[in-house]
Amino acid sequence: MAQQKKMVDDITSMEEDFAKWYTDIVKKAELIEYTSVKGCMVIRPFGYAIWEHMQKILDGMFKATGHENVCMPMFIPESLLQKEKDHVEGFAPEVAWVTHGGNEKLEERLCVRPTSETLFCEHYANIIQSHRDLPKLYNQWVSVVRWEKTTRPFLRSREFLWQEGHTIHATAEEAVEETERMLNVYADFCEQYLAMPVVKGQKTESDKFAGAVSTYAIEALMHDGKALQAGTSHYFGDGFAKAFGIQYQSKENKLEYPHQTSWGVTTRLIGAVIMTHGDNNGLVLPPAVAPIQAVIVPVAMHKPGVLEKANEVKAALEAGGIRVKLDSSDNSPGWKFAEYEMKGVPVRIELGPRDIENNACVLVTRHNREKTVASLDNLADTVKAKLGEVRDALYQSALENRERRTYACTTMDEITAALNEHGDGFVKAMWCGDEACEDKVKEVTGVGSRCIPFAQEHLSDVCVCCGKPAKHMVYWGKAY
Amino acid sequence: MAQQKKMVDDITSMEEDFAKWYTDIVKKAELIEYTSVKGCMVIRPFGYAIWEHMQKILDGMFKATGHENVCMPMFIPESLLQKEKDHVEGFAPEVAWVTHGGNEKLEERLCVRPTSETLFCEHYANIIQSHRDLPKLYNQWVSVVRWEKTTRPFLRSREFLWQEGHTIHATAEEAVEETERMLNVYADFCEQYLAMPVVKGQKTESDKFAGAVSTYAIEALMHDGKALQAGTSHYFGDGFAKAFGIQYQSKENKLEYPHQTSWGVTTRLIGAVIMTHGDNNGLVLPPAVAPIQAVIVPVAMHKPGVLEKANEVKAALEAGGIRVKLDSSDNSPGWKFAEYEMKGVPVRIELGPRDIENNACVLVTRHNREKTVASLDNLADTVKAKLGEVRDALYQSALENRERRTYACTTMDEITAALNEHGDGFVKAMWCGDEACEDKVKEVTGVGSRCIPFAQEHLSDVCVCCGKPAKHMVYWGKAY
Repeated sequence: MAQQKKMVDDITSMEEDFAKWYTDIVKKAELIEYTSVKGCMVIRPFGYAIWEHMQKILDGMFKATGHENVCMPMFIPESLLQKEKDHVEGFAPEVAWVTHGGNEKLEERLCVRPTSETLFCEHYANIIQSHRDLPKLYNQWVSVVRWEKTTRPFLRSREFLWQEGHTIHATAEEAVEETERMLNVYADFCEQYLAMPVVKGQKTESDKFAGAVSTYAIEALMHDGKALQAGTSHYFGDGFAKAFGIQYQSKENKLEYPHQTSWGVTTRLIGAVIMTHGDNNGLVLPPAVAPIQAVIVPVAMHKPGVLEKANEVKAALEAGGIRVKLDSSDNSPGWKFAEYEMKGVPVRIELGPRDIENNACVLVTRHNREKTVASLDNLADTVKAKLGEVRDALYQSALENRERRTYACTTMDEITAALNEHGDGFVKAMWCGDEACEDKVKEVTGVGSRCIPFAQEHLSDVCVCCGKPAKHMVYWGKAY
Repeated sequence: MAQQKKMVDDITSMEEDFAKWYTDIVKKAELIEYTSVKGCMVIRPFGYAIWEHMQKILDGMFKATGHENVCMPMFIPESLLQKEKDHVEGFAPEVAWVTHGGNEKLEERLCVRPTSETLFCEHYANIIQSHRDLPKLYNQWVSVVRWEKTTRPFLRSREFLWQEGHTIHATAEEAVEETERMLNVYADFCEQYLAMPVVKGQKTESDKFAGAVSTYAIEALMHDGKALQAGTSHYFGDGFAKAFGIQYQSKENKLEYPHQTSWGVTTRLIGAVIMTHGDNNGLVLPPAVAPIQAVIVPVAMHKPGVLEKANEVKAALEAGGIRVKLDSSDNSPGWKFAEYEMKGVPVRIELGPRDIENNACVLVTRHNREKTVASLDNLADTVKAKLGEVRDALYQSALENRERRTYACTTMDEITAALNEHGDGFVKAMWCGDEACEDKVKEVTGVGSRCIPFAQEHLSDVCVCCGKPAKHMVYWGKAY
């Protein structure tokens, strides 16, 4: 057909080459395009729209929990970055440095923010005097830069989009509560809206954020059995407050140091969605963040009445609050089927002359290609119900995949055997709390500690590595 | 009162020192806070919320005109910036340069985007092959950096937030149409939502954007009689396409260069709102972008029933879609009155025991302090109507201010006399089109060309400067 734009190219199957399957999808579903700066990508309209839906839902959840949006500068003077010792050690090796403004060399070089704790601290010191100024519950939606050596779209890029929450409280208790609250917000968001089950837990000492007292994280398991850290929430105690001289006058008129938190999720969540739900035909999007929730593909489009009816159906679905697209281009129905499967549109609506005669249409759900015939009466309700079923089915399927690939082990040999036999996945095993054992498990079996889950289980009395008394049950895995 | 947080400090009056009045407002209404990096500011929750409302309205207008959001990287390699000659000449002197990533010197230095034409062009070259790929109608919400020498919050900062639209079309006609369409969108936004009248016109050759064929702008007049460029829309012709090698195959199978536009507004609009509507008691916000549209101040708050009623009123207004705050803090009503006047809240609702007895409340509009007694029945409708009246009154008052300060002049002496007698303002005068005259007008009278308005008037046959035949009527003014 002369008007046909292009055929949808096949993508590499995930069984053949998982990494290539992933990059095929991000390119061919038109989520990103590369640029001439390594590790910096263009997020294209379809990719950015997914992020906008994530933003809108999360922003609502942040505001519902009392947070306000602000915007800090993107530049941090070197001396400011250095104020908190652990923090600068963690970040200085991977920041981009601005040394010149126009033709002039700067007196002090500035880094492009890799994260904004230091900027928030400088600000807190300016605006907080009394207990009446606390808490401050802030968030910002910005991009940050970390000069990574190896990069992959969404998963690890030199610049990425994120939100970073920063809060400051009178007491340690309040700050710890906040840290937990926001981890729960992230978990709810991932499970309810991204249909992606997560494990909530605490990072080990060696894996926590630079400058934090403790780091909480949510961990998800991808199709290939690798673990992906999907969000983190940090409790800082009063370490930053002391380093930056932030003090407040208490009700008892004493000068006290406040307690801080920060928490963030990034465009990495788009990568997580791809690797949790995608298949060999392309993206599979959870309905809540799908830019197009239903696509109408007219069949025998040029027969009288078909396009008119398709437009009616579109209007009815829009009125029902569904994000719907009618593709009336001259491409063939077959081309359109493949195109919107590639783009992960949850529901396809096929509508031809015979369907219209029967006051019906065919609904095809993307994730399982199941076809059902639906009446055109109350179609918006039918489609909405279908979108709900899709979310539940995606969640269930991801959960089953995770369960199938989670191995409870009590010895190092069991770990190695489980990974060899069933492939990569989560390993649950007991740990004494010693960093040497943590390192050795990774060295010997290849899986590192992902988190100490809040939902502890007792698998044995002793550390999987050294045999000394166990302190925690830990999730281990290979990480993105 | 022990619980009182602080008294609202007086601000400098605008008659005494306009610049100080302005910075007093941005600080004391808690819109921004300075940082240790000159020209980079913290946008605080109240300031950022204004920007969020502007964003939401504009984003809706962009999407309604067919635009899609994307996100380009923040870094531009030096060689990419240099591809279009005029463009690099205009921007290179004022960019921030990244020279190091972590501990390593970069092979090529990168600038932090001052604007993103070059990035969009690189992307277009990758994704555009055929006439079927056109047009692309893109926008992005990001921050950009320009290394200014003198800086002022919102008006001229080294980093600022903005949106930049970038579009590419098969024909010049389409691109010119787009340039005009988006200027009209900006003008509608300013007039309808910010209650700020603007003059639409074209920039002179000497004042157009680096790399543009023509630049359109909207110009507004501030309280002090100075002009503020509130938004610009550029037509590029095919100059960038040629510089970047962007070509498409036409329907007739010929290789053609496409035509481009870009257009932007920035957080400068917050400055424009302050200087258009503000007064000596602080901010005056147009209702459409006010974070709080109505504040309820309970009087004799601890009398039985007052707070209960105030909460009922709040719920009723919220149900009516009004952004409402109930201030039940222990500060005195007088303190609250001053605080929310400073913050520009359009409507104050005073509610005391006697009002409640009468099933009434007192409404006070911020801009004129007019009091009316309103029934508590259908209060949401009453307040909504009041907010509409406020918008209209603000617009009318700004328009009258501009009319009063717009001087039609036919000689240089008339210009000088008008400015001396009535103070700074817009000067309307004829111009021959010669840059030498443009420069001389500025040198002699102090006012530069602001734009050649689309709504031309015939004031005389000859140029105000040289006496040769006039080509255009021009708006002249002192600029921010």
